[in-house]
Amino acid sequence: MSEEKENIQFQLTDELIDKVELLVEQGNDTELQKLLVEFHYADIAEILDELNLDQAVYVIKLLDSETTSDILKELDEGIREKVLRSLSTKEIAEEVEELDSDDAADIIAELPEERQQAVIEQIEDEEHKAEITELLTYDEDSAGGLMAKELVKVYETWTVAGCMRRIRGQAEEVTRVHSVYVVNKEEKLIGRLSLKDLIVAKNEKKIADIVKVNVDYVNVNENVEEVAKIMAKYDLEAIPVVDDNKTLLGRITIDDIVDVMKEEAEKDYQLAAGITSDVEADDSILELTKARLPWLLIGMFGGIGAASIINGFSDAMLKFPALLMFIPLIQATAGNVGVQSSAIVVQGLTNNTVDGKILSRLLKEFFLGLVNGLAIAAIVLVISHFVFETSYLESLTICVALITVIIMAALIGTFVPIFLDKRGIDAAVATGPFITTSNDVFGIFIYFLIAKMILQF
Amino acid sequence: MSEEKENIQFQLTDELIDKVELLVEQGNDTELQKLLVEFHYADIAEILDELNLDQAVYVIKLLDSETTSDILKELDEGIREKVLRSLSTKEIAEEVEELDSDDAADIIAELPEERQQAVIEQIEDEEHKAEITELLTYDEDSAGGLMAKELVKVYETWTVAGCMRRIRGQAEEVTRVHSVYVVNKEEKLIGRLSLKDLIVAKNEKKIADIVKVNVDYVNVNENVEEVAKIMAKYDLEAIPVVDDNKTLLGRITIDDIVDVMKEEAEKDYQLAAGITSDVEADDSILELTKARLPWLLIGMFGGIGAASIINGFSDAMLKFPALLMFIPLIQATAGNVGVQSSAIVVQGLTNNTVDGKILSRLLKEFFLGLVNGLAIAAIVLVISHFVFETSYLESLTICVALITVIIMAALIGTFVPIFLDKRGIDAAVATGPFITTSNDVFGIFIYFLIAKMILQF
Repeated sequence: MSEEKENIQFQLTDELIDKVELLVEQGNDTELQKLLVEFHYADIAEILDELNLDQAVYVIKLLDSETTSDILKELDEGIREKVLRSLSTKEIAEEVEELDSDDAADIIAELPEERQQAVIEQIEDEEHKAEITELLTYDEDSAGGLMAKELVKVYETWTVAGCMRRIRGQAEEVTRVHSVYVVNKEEKLIGRLSLKDLIVAKNEKKIADIVKVNVDYVNVNENVEEVAKIMAKYDLEAIPVVDDNKTLLGRITIDDIVDVMKEEAEKDYQLAAGITSDVEADDSILELTKARLPWLLIGMFGGIGAASIINGFSDAMLKFPALLMFIPLIQATAGNVGVQSSAIVVQGLTNNTVDGKILSRLLKEFFLGLVNGLAIAAIVLVISHFVFETSYLESLTICVALITVIIMAALIGTFVPIFLDKRGIDAAVATGPFITTSNDVFGIFIYFLIAKMILQF
Repeated sequence: MSEEKENIQFQLTDELIDKVELLVEQGNDTELQKLLVEFHYADIAEILDELNLDQAVYVIKLLDSETTSDILKELDEGIREKVLRSLSTKEIAEEVEELDSDDAADIIAELPEERQQAVIEQIEDEEHKAEITELLTYDEDSAGGLMAKELVKVYETWTVAGCMRRIRGQAEEVTRVHSVYVVNKEEKLIGRLSLKDLIVAKNEKKIADIVKVNVDYVNVNENVEEVAKIMAKYDLEAIPVVDDNKTLLGRITIDDIVDVMKEEAEKDYQLAAGITSDVEADDSILELTKARLPWLLIGMFGGIGAASIINGFSDAMLKFPALLMFIPLIQATAGNVGVQSSAIVVQGLTNNTVDGKILSRLLKEFFLGLVNGLAIAAIVLVISHFVFETSYLESLTICVALITVIIMAALIGTFVPIFLDKRGIDAAVATGPFITTSNDVFGIFIYFLIAKMILQF
């Protein structure tokens, strides 16, 4: 079983890649197989990610479909798409034949509409075909879209001994047996058993007597992020998926949830950094531009906005040039505070630690801003006065503006994400450039207002 | 078993908390028990997180230690610390008695030095005591610090039947049996078996004949992040931990890894947002200030730096006031580009998708910056000329500066994280305010240099 390959020592070195490329060029199949058979399929996938398409396809076609199906599953999505395009629907059907229903459905879902049907039709195992067809009907962000049909199911009326016999049968096609799910004759989920429980129990016992009822389960339409939260909170390794009648439909395993969590974390991280769509360092310049330019444009319009504000106060500026020097300081501080506040709130929302109480939270941010503002203003006061020799009124203006801007930025950074979240919008978009830009413009505007008041221009 | 409590319907409502608080005030123990016995321990922990210390302790002392030990494990760290302080070492020892060795060790590790020993001495189960004492010797960021001693171990010389008998014994004290680990008579790990394999195998078979060799394992000193990567990459649910002689020491389960991954993601997210230490929205203003002020100060010094640059060019500024208007634009753009570039690289480094090839990556960022820069400069050119009626030379200055700044920011944002990573420093610190600030100052400086060249002042 590829799953059992040694892999801790695996290192994706340039030498290794060169070696594989060379063997492919030479068409030295025996050597290539001898080399690759040593590796775990996840490692082979990493190697293929580095090869060009022809080389990758060559390797795929060389290896046995049990291994290649697992490799396909692990390939970088962009590369998998290319590889699948250069495989016939028959070949894809053979790969899919080897995979668990959930992985099979995921791969077929990536194919263009017209090919999907062709592939499904060529799947020989009728049960597998039916399972995949069912899974394709669920939303990919729902429990149904993540679950696998493979599970071990027993009926409450069975005995432990009979149960063990049946499990020997069913277990063959289930990669990992976390739990044995117990259903009644209407196929409704009534509980679970761990293999441990079965092994420990007496053979003649009835399942109904040892089953653990009140088992965790999720509805097939539950959102995957919610499923992830539940499994993480209750330390579950697998959770059964049921329909509205509590009929057992499938199960979700923790390894799928781990992937969901990673994607979520990366998405939020990128949003906070002002990257819209999910991109990787290795994507094309076009893809990266598409992901990055939008936020840069927003930042640009913010800058234009700031320009017109300064323009509006230009004559005053000529009277108090010293004020201009501190525009970058005001701007940077406003941006930083806003990002900090929003990030903490966004994280709180994701972990459900931020509840509805907006007012108390805003009050807290107010004091937080006041403390930080006073600290920074004090330092700036000294520096501006002694280093830049600004007049008392100018120094006063700068400090009052700093404190006000910091407080406003903290409040905006806190309010906007909570507001968006209440509107059902992903609050993560409200971090990074979005909050920075709005705070930049806002901060500069406040700066000049305060200057106007104190310096009376 | 509390693990089996129904929980999908659980909602932490204010009503529920009020109800619990009321029952505690009334000292209505029977009602309180009747209410709480329905909940999963993770849910009870969420409730206690909302109560005040006395109330929480009251509930802890009311419930049976099997449940409370699980609750303690799930409590918010700050609150757990307070609760433990108000429990006697004897009471803590009783709680710890109920937990798996890894959770037990984690809780004891949180206690002040002097209490740790007192608690350990009062643990009655000698084996459990020895295991905890061993676990306390490992670094908390190492595999040893994360592993549990509880596992099911069999010897290669046994038969399947004998194996099953022994497992019935060992399995009792192991919460979840993922794999049965096979060792030789020197206790060295030689492979694993899933319970499924055992159930499917014939009784008279020797373990040595059905054991899966080449099993994944990690060294006890391996860093937890590395362990997390391995388990996520190879979809493992448990991994055995060995010493340098490959002697089996313990096992790490995926649910612990899930927690590690969550913490990692949150840490990086906060660093990107300029928050140094791990804080939550509900922490005190002091804690939040400690986490936020450092980056704000760095930003402040950046602002001061920008101020002195502007100051240095002040007379030129009076000749070309139009240039001043665009300082915020230059600054914001530089910051945004830098954050984007660094975020992508940092993520690439975490996922090992960014390899050593610095030069090719910098070249790519150069072209990426050029594309983005030209796009933005084009728009700004039009706006600055027609809206702000800047002279041709001024417009030219602004656009050339924008393009240059964007390219420089992209290069810095890419280079710095890779550089830090090569030095063994967590690249995540190089995102957010760090890169923004340096790019702010740098950007403004470049802006004036280019202005000087083009406008000849």
